[in-house]
Amino acid sequence: MYEQLKKYLRHNITVDGDILNEIVHSFKPVHFKKNSILLSNGDVCDTFYFVNKGCMRTYYLTLNGSEKTRYIALEGMVITALNSFIAQTPSFEFIDTLDDVEALCISRTAFYGLAKRFSEWRKFYIRLLEFAYIYQNKKIEELVTLSAGERYALLMREHPDYIKRLPNKILASYLDVTQETLSRLKSR
Amino acid sequence: MYEQLKKYLRHNITVDGDILNEIVHSFKPVHFKKNSILLSNGDVCDTFYFVNKGCMRTYYLTLNGSEKTRYIALEGMVITALNSFIAQTPSFEFIDTLDDVEALCISRTAFYGLAKRFSEWRKFYIRLLEFAYIYQNKKIEELVTLSAGERYALLMREHPDYIKRLPNKILASYLDVTQETLSRLKSR
Repeated sequence: MYEQLKKYLRHNITVDGDILNEIVHSFKPVHFKKNSILLSNGDVCDTFYFVNKGCMRTYYLTLNGSEKTRYIALEGMVITALNSFIAQTPSFEFIDTLDDVEALCISRTAFYGLAKRFSEWRKFYIRLLEFAYIYQNKKIEELVTLSAGERYALLMREHPDYIKRLPNKILASYLDVTQETLSRLKSR
Repeated sequence: MYEQLKKYLRHNITVDGDILNEIVHSFKPVHFKKNSILLSNGDVCDTFYFVNKGCMRTYYLTLNGSEKTRYIALEGMVITALNSFIAQTPSFEFIDTLDDVEALCISRTAFYGLAKRFSEWRKFYIRLLEFAYIYQNKKIEELVTLSAGERYALLMREHPDYIKRLPNKILASYLDVTQETLSRLKSR
């Protein structure tokens, strides 16, 4: 149950076996049905997830009610509403499941407790924040500099798994195109 | 020369006088003329700035060549092209000066050198990353959920200094409205 998380952490930080065990056992196993909303706009986020099986995402609603998918976590990836998790302000984003999901979760209190105790976890937190910032900026950059077709081509290169696994509605909202445009791009 | 930076750091982290002195003296004084471009799109950013006097900003160009101002640093604020600074990839953003500027700067090598030596600086780096992520998301959130008028009203509450000091062209590109719209909002 904890093997994927151990592998993920070892990939990101140097950490000895005892401390790694203590860290991963601060996470608890959870299961969610497909299409469960785990966090709504306005809630304060106090949970950090690692996906063992299935798919989760964060998304937000625009003024006219359309969904924008910001981030997608497949197996072996982490997910939270990071803004709200850090600042403990009401979340702008939703978190939901796109499949039946098996995950490991850790509370905010336990997360920052680990950061107090282990320099390894502080290093992991820095990695996470750097990744999150770079990820967010890359999305903005792609939105303002690439056409819809170029964004689709980039996704095919970087995340062919998204294209195979996700329904068109989610993919379209991730690429910020209409479903009609996405169908046209796929058929080329 | 280092007093403002000391005050800024003390506001963000707990740090004793000797270490604080060592940290601030890793920064070197620099002067720039108004409208100097310190980093261009495509350059790799290796400098982190603290503004003692004047105003600097980061901006990027959209596909059709219009400027979007992402972040504005007045006296007592820090600025860098953080993505490129972290990942050492070509910058998407420009950095320029909007006034004659007196700043303190530190190289990337010295910055991460401080992080190796001082847990205080690692804490500062975590604060910086958290702030940057939250700032970036707040901007996206405002763009997708607030009208131009609401964004202007929010800026008047949170940063009346921007409205007093910045030319309309810069303010409009920060609010993501046309200069005509900004003039209309100002005259209300």
